Amino acid sequence: MSEAPHLTVDLDEPGVSRGHLVVPGGGDRAELSLPVFSLNKGEGPRLLVTGGNHGNELEGPIVARRLIKWLPEAQTCGRVIVLPVLNPLAVEAWSRNTPLDGLNLNRVFPGRADGSVTERIADAVSRVLLPMADTVFDLHSFGPTWDFPPAATTHPITDPGLMARTVRMAEAFKLPLTLVWQHNDTAGMFDITAQNQGKVFVCTEFGGGTVGADNLAIYEAGVRNALIALGLIEGEAEYPTFRQHKSGQTLETRPADELKSPAAGIFEPRCSVLDEVKQGDLIGILHPIDSLSAESINMHAPETSIVLAVASGAHVDANKVVALVARPLKK
Amino acid sequence: MSEAPHLTVDLDEPGVSRGHLVVPGGGDRAELSLPVFSLNKGEGPRLLVTGGNHGNELEGPIVARRLIKWLPEAQTCGRVIVLPVLNPLAVEAWSRNTPLDGLNLNRVFPGRADGSVTERIADAVSRVLLPMADTVFDLHSFGPTWDFPPAATTHPITDPGLMARTVRMAEAFKLPLTLVWQHNDTAGMFDITAQNQGKVFVCTEFGGGTVGADNLAIYEAGVRNALIALGLIEGEAEYPTFRQHKSGQTLETRPADELKSPAAGIFEPRCSVLDEVKQGDLIGILHPIDSLSAESINMHAPETSIVLAVASGAHVDANKVVALVARPLKK
Repeated sequence: MSEAPHLTVDLDEPGVSRGHLVVPGGGDRAELSLPVFSLNKGEGPRLLVTGGNHGNELEGPIVARRLIKWLPEAQTCGRVIVLPVLNPLAVEAWSRNTPLDGLNLNRVFPGRADGSVTERIADAVSRVLLPMADTVFDLHSFGPTWDFPPAATTHPITDPGLMARTVRMAEAFKLPLTLVWQHNDTAGMFDITAQNQGKVFVCTEFGGGTVGADNLAIYEAGVRNALIALGLIEGEAEYPTFRQHKSGQTLETRPADELKSPAAGIFEPRCSVLDEVKQGDLIGILHPIDSLSAESINMHAPETSIVLAVASGAHVDANKVVALVARPLKK
Repeated sequence: MSEAPHLTVDLDEPGVSRGHLVVPGGGDRAELSLPVFSLNKGEGPRLLVTGGNHGNELEGPIVARRLIKWLPEAQTCGRVIVLPVLNPLAVEAWSRNTPLDGLNLNRVFPGRADGSVTERIADAVSRVLLPMADTVFDLHSFGPTWDFPPAATTHPITDPGLMARTVRMAEAFKLPLTLVWQHNDTAGMFDITAQNQGKVFVCTEFGGGTVGADNLAIYEAGVRNALIALGLIEGEAEYPTFRQHKSGQTLETRPADELKSPAAGIFEPRCSVLDEVKQGDLIGILHPIDSLSAESINMHAPETSIVLAVASGAHVDANKVVALVARPLKK
């Protein structure tokens, strides 16, 4: 019988701790050791920061490493636990899901102690680390096939008090976009497990496309702003510069705001993220690849809205989401 | 016995032709029909434009479609043949190589009539289309895992006259970067086959990362500039705006200019493309993912140079190329 998930260090000790969260082995592989950092400065907010939930979203692990570097000089109170890479198996494979069992870690929470490796990671995080935090930042991004602005996001939450606190926390990142995202594929998300325990959970979507130096600076600034808002560090929060603008807006999007490809073909994006579009404006073009006589199909904005996400130009099947629009959040 | 590769239309007819280049079937699959466009305005330059050589570089196919759209109104003489997608099997799979036989189309030229499907595509292009052109533009890009500026590139060519004409043609795109790229993996490239026949061949590398509307406009402007320089269309060539600059530079890079990861880990880029760096400047950081006690490794510029390409932040194995530098071309 395998041991229970556990930490190799006592995070209740004051000061800096570096160790591992041990995820027990199972039928599919031996135990996993996930590096974990903690800085305990006593009374105050209790924050858990995680990255590498999806293996092809590397902004999170990199920003988490930066945080670990400057936190010892900056943190004045409370406790911050940082787990830069939740799913090393997916990160090593540069894949969204875990190659070994094909599972999406962010759809198997709270996990299972006797499940496959992805479920065992979720179980270890849920049982060992989550109880130590009141606030969770899970650092995602849109991955290599989308353009998306740096954003702090949440889903609608039934409890109006927790919803308001969560949106306020998300806005405190002062990123170009704060987003309330209503979609139908939330079962098993880390978010839900944390929110069901009354915790404030913000999922950052730190943009999409390549992971580059300029954008990493924006993401790091967002995390710093959030830590200032929590009172964990001192400093002045300010909007980072994104595409010549220093500002932010809070939007909401629903399943009906997805634009899908009308046929198979090469999707050509014709708008950029955060563009304001009117009904009928050109969003993209779908080019058939088997003929140059067949007409390409123009895709139009369904209504006045703001472009949230645009897929990278690529060949797509019919009925695939290629763009998302949004509108200002009604509070 | 299979038929020979052929066109379904007679491109010697004046005006616009739309048809297919038929790549015969073989043991691995049935015949392929590649859509082809031609505009014949009589005497003048004879240009072949191809895209979709690699299936995850979709800028080329999209810009080729735009070219087809405005060429009938713009072309004043000569002949332009456009094949937007050389390798539809790779494009449909969003993969660099052909999934069916695992081959890189740009390493099997001039191809083989009795080879696998990738070799048969190269054979059909080499035998049917290449003889109809004096100049070839093959529209590539750096793909989703690199940052790279929009560029027109060539390799060193033994014949100094052809080399000079090729660099002049590449510079006529007026992209931010013109590049002479010396590397050791050129056997079987489309470039070599065309250059061995004395043709001017320019390989555009239209940037890297996501394929977005802003960059597509730069790429389209580059192709328009090149057609103006050839005398195929009228107009004023000008540098497009890339990251607030309207200018271009001509650089060269060699195999020794590759920076490789010193160990396995997460590569964090710390510079941007076209940055000028001095010896010792920080290019990137390599973070081990199995421990937060082990030190991250700083990677420095080997000498004063210009950053050409930077890999997207991702987990890499040891000894993987993560950045390229370059210096001004000595003419």
